[in-house]
Amino acid sequence: MTTNGQLIGLDWGTSSLRAYLYDADGNVIASRQQPWGLRHLPEGGFAAALLAITRDWPACPAIAAGMVGSRQGWREIPYVDVPADAASMAQGVLRVETCHSHALWIAPGLRQIAPADVMRGEETQIIGALSQQPALRAGARFVLPGTHSKWAAVVDDRIVAFHTVMTGEMYAVLMKHSILGAGASIDPMQPHHGDAFFRGLRTAKESGAEGAFSRLFSTRACMLAGDLASAEVPDFLSGLLIGEEFRLARLRDGDHLAPLCLIGDSSLCQRYTAAATCFGYAPPVVIDNAAAQGLWRLASAAGLLTHTVSRPYSGVET
Amino acid sequence: MTTNGQLIGLDWGTSSLRAYLYDADGNVIASRQQPWGLRHLPEGGFAAALLAITRDWPACPAIAAGMVGSRQGWREIPYVDVPADAASMAQGVLRVETCHSHALWIAPGLRQIAPADVMRGEETQIIGALSQQPALRAGARFVLPGTHSKWAAVVDDRIVAFHTVMTGEMYAVLMKHSILGAGASIDPMQPHHGDAFFRGLRTAKESGAEGAFSRLFSTRACMLAGDLASAEVPDFLSGLLIGEEFRLARLRDGDHLAPLCLIGDSSLCQRYTAAATCFGYAPPVVIDNAAAQGLWRLASAAGLLTHTVSRPYSGVET
Repeated sequence: MTTNGQLIGLDWGTSSLRAYLYDADGNVIASRQQPWGLRHLPEGGFAAALLAITRDWPACPAIAAGMVGSRQGWREIPYVDVPADAASMAQGVLRVETCHSHALWIAPGLRQIAPADVMRGEETQIIGALSQQPALRAGARFVLPGTHSKWAAVVDDRIVAFHTVMTGEMYAVLMKHSILGAGASIDPMQPHHGDAFFRGLRTAKESGAEGAFSRLFSTRACMLAGDLASAEVPDFLSGLLIGEEFRLARLRDGDHLAPLCLIGDSSLCQRYTAAATCFGYAPPVVIDNAAAQGLWRLASAAGLLTHTVSRPYSGVET
Repeated sequence: MTTNGQLIGLDWGTSSLRAYLYDADGNVIASRQQPWGLRHLPEGGFAAALLAITRDWPACPAIAAGMVGSRQGWREIPYVDVPADAASMAQGVLRVETCHSHALWIAPGLRQIAPADVMRGEETQIIGALSQQPALRAGARFVLPGTHSKWAAVVDDRIVAFHTVMTGEMYAVLMKHSILGAGASIDPMQPHHGDAFFRGLRTAKESGAEGAFSRLFSTRACMLAGDLASAEVPDFLSGLLIGEEFRLARLRDGDHLAPLCLIGDSSLCQRYTAAATCFGYAPPVVIDNAAAQGLWRLASAAGLLTHTVSRPYSGVET
């Protein structure tokens, strides 16, 4: 145990687990990554994964965010409603019994009542990004590309609204399980077909109110007609689906295009940057290491850095 | 061999094979069905399936339509371009060598250059429906629900334009392979949740220019919030996706809502009838046995009924 502000942060999602060790000033002094997401836990489950990924690290408090707090996770942590800021999220952080030396807290996700939507993990990245770039606190628009891409609006350092687009998952299921993937090359080592990606973006843009999904079957028809090579299908589909996210954004934004901030995998961020430009947005700010900073900020707001040991256990076990 | 007009018609798709035996007046005097679609052929493949399903039937000419003429089928038959009528489709019918007593012809599918689209099998159902109901020849709008739903416009007995919406396939891949199906009950014996279906339709309708796909993740969020029971998810999703087809139709039709004609499975036609009404269309005409009549009409236009034996073999083998 330590009371000098050292902390372990865990970004624990469906497909991976990242661990950060912080010094007393919140600097990351070590980090580790394992493919131990919810779907690929090692033998012994969550507790074994935590023990292994923090091996040899000091016995300081740990805070986790992401799907680890979902119904399929270690323990379901109730959502906090938007509008939400670091303080209201910190109030939803709950302690989990772990049977080993680390005291573990899990962060809540966010819920929006209407339109109904939820997130787990991205909210922590957003408050981390706001911590990194205080100029964004007054007002910003975040895009977190991925399996379930999140678009979130921040006003006065609070997440006020968000919506989810199932872009990554839709891409995966269509490529693996639909006629669109049949005969299409999905070799991840193939060179990137930039032209096909832009063609997908333009098709989404030109689809107007009909939307990019009304153009899905044309991918197949173009393949059959020899107008789209099988090797180009993955990038065309990627452009079409990412383009659909931006088509929706333009519908909501009209001609008032506030700058976007991107948080995510760098190759995905490159695609989203190209898409943003294609749809008339300025090149987005790209933010790195947002989760690590968000976990620190949340732990700090939850009082885990200085009062950990004395924080009552039972009060957060509801 | 026969020259008295007897014919075998084969409606041969991806998942099933239906065979019809006609008398000299085009009445169906026997029919058989097997699950021998392209994906489930018996041992011996196409030839064995043809032999088995026509066992004991007269050695008359046979004509097949559907995916059997696709690249994955028995033989790829080049598409005929729209606008197309029975005469132009008949010109695309090609003879296939079968090594047994039936002379077999396969019908072409239709192709539309812009927007790029294709169909195989539905065109034969449409000309069958026009044969059944001559009043529709002047002008009609056909909807053929299914894995890849087709919407086709007929003017002056010609199919002039069409578009495909991947409704059935999208439903199947989302229920089987996405987060939306996770935890959702997909017992086909469960009672039909009419309220959830209508809620899906209304959600699609109210999605406006954003489209029903922008509401997909809300299905998950509503489930997590307890606002949608897991048993209701399949019907909600069905309503959402069928509603998207009608949202697109309304965008194209504006307020000029011509009557629709439905061709397809009766339970699907019930859903589409409910959707049509929800979106302001009059209850559609529902047409049965369109494929059987279409195959007869095509065979007749191709000259297979009276001139079969003397028709040159080589001329159609290109």
